[in-house]
Amino acid sequence: MRSLFVPNLKEGILRLSEEETRHAVTVLRAKIGFSYALMDGKGGTAEGIIIELDKRSCVMEVGEISRESLPQLGLTMIVTPTKKKERFEWFLEKATEIGVDRIYPVFTSRSESKIEKFDRWNKVLISAMKQSKRTWLPKLMPAMALIDAVSEISDSPHLAKNFFVAHCMDAVSLSKKTHLLKALVPGESTCIAIGPEGDFTTEEVEKMLDLGAKEITLGDMRLRSETAAIVAVTFFAARQV
Amino acid sequence: MRSLFVPNLKEGILRLSEEETRHAVTVLRAKIGFSYALMDGKGGTAEGIIIELDKRSCVMEVGEISRESLPQLGLTMIVTPTKKKERFEWFLEKATEIGVDRIYPVFTSRSESKIEKFDRWNKVLISAMKQSKRTWLPKLMPAMALIDAVSEISDSPHLAKNFFVAHCMDAVSLSKKTHLLKALVPGESTCIAIGPEGDFTTEEVEKMLDLGAKEITLGDMRLRSETAAIVAVTFFAARQV
Repeated sequence: MRSLFVPNLKEGILRLSEEETRHAVTVLRAKIGFSYALMDGKGGTAEGIIIELDKRSCVMEVGEISRESLPQLGLTMIVTPTKKKERFEWFLEKATEIGVDRIYPVFTSRSESKIEKFDRWNKVLISAMKQSKRTWLPKLMPAMALIDAVSEISDSPHLAKNFFVAHCMDAVSLSKKTHLLKALVPGESTCIAIGPEGDFTTEEVEKMLDLGAKEITLGDMRLRSETAAIVAVTFFAARQV
Repeated sequence: MRSLFVPNLKEGILRLSEEETRHAVTVLRAKIGFSYALMDGKGGTAEGIIIELDKRSCVMEVGEISRESLPQLGLTMIVTPTKKKERFEWFLEKATEIGVDRIYPVFTSRSESKIEKFDRWNKVLISAMKQSKRTWLPKLMPAMALIDAVSEISDSPHLAKNFFVAHCMDAVSLSKKTHLLKALVPGESTCIAIGPEGDFTTEEVEKMLDLGAKEITLGDMRLRSETAAIVAVTFFAARQV
């Protein structure tokens, strides 16, 4: 069954948003009598059947809502939008499929893009959520300066304990970099910050270390920024098995 | 230092191919006197300096060649080109960055694309190899029917031992699916076949099982075909740590 995103999901009679109506009509070729899996991105799903439809308005009769509690993935990613926008959007899609809770898009000294596209990014997440039949939408934070995101992480005791930073320089602290797979603690909330295309600066890494981060490596592969971010998300998934 | 792909790498005076000359001139804005890292995709690297240059011809003086032996990654992937060509090319790029030896693009009963683009696909691999500073180019096999690729794998005793197939149906054999991370044997050559967008058919899976494949799962994520392939490559990398 195809899926529709309905943030205001409720049982009984419900009118779709104009945007989702357009999606239903033009992409899914919806017709009266067709059924869809409705998801609110907050764990709620239900089956809905179209009872009224024109190009701008779609009314559905919604069955019983089943609720799934927030999955304990516990993964927060701090990532930087890439110069080529499709590379960052690709990360958003793949991270949603593989599993992530929260994404902080951040701007750094060497960021090659400082443009926030919140609505477009969120659409990529919604579309990947529907496609991968996840019931919880990853939380997209507003874009902010790296230091502000890092301060928020360090204010949260259970995240600060497992806060890792990946960069391409030699270790800035005196200790050697640990491999992420060895640093991850299964079942514990984790935050991973991935350097931008031009890498973090030494000052940025020092700042994160001051706030409790630990330096990790993803191995001796030389990865693009968005590939490193997906490898980190996949390593996190691997450690939960 | 920027990289150039020179399959016929040799010490002394060397003329670049027309295509790589174009790349050097238009993308890298090469000039006489500029130095580049040259790689032949077969473990050979050297530094080269441009001594003659016009739009169609580039002559370099090549220093000593250093040779790296074939890395014992030992990962062969059997994958299906996707309907949207950029999704398959994205897989090729990411797999090269993360690490793969050999790629079999195959056509299956439910393949949505049956078009081979060997030269274009190989270009994606070359570009990713240069970017990730790998010295060995993954071997791209000519596109073939699934059964022909599977026969080749089953003829190779060390691959047939660790030949895994990922699909979205319930297990076709009587045994339960094993998680790939648990099935992988570190240090051993491995082949992983990933179902196409519409999945393998039961008959295709049975055929692979007859030829020695074992059914595996990547977890309870619902992944697009190309995402599943990258997750498999990353899980393989994780098991070598």
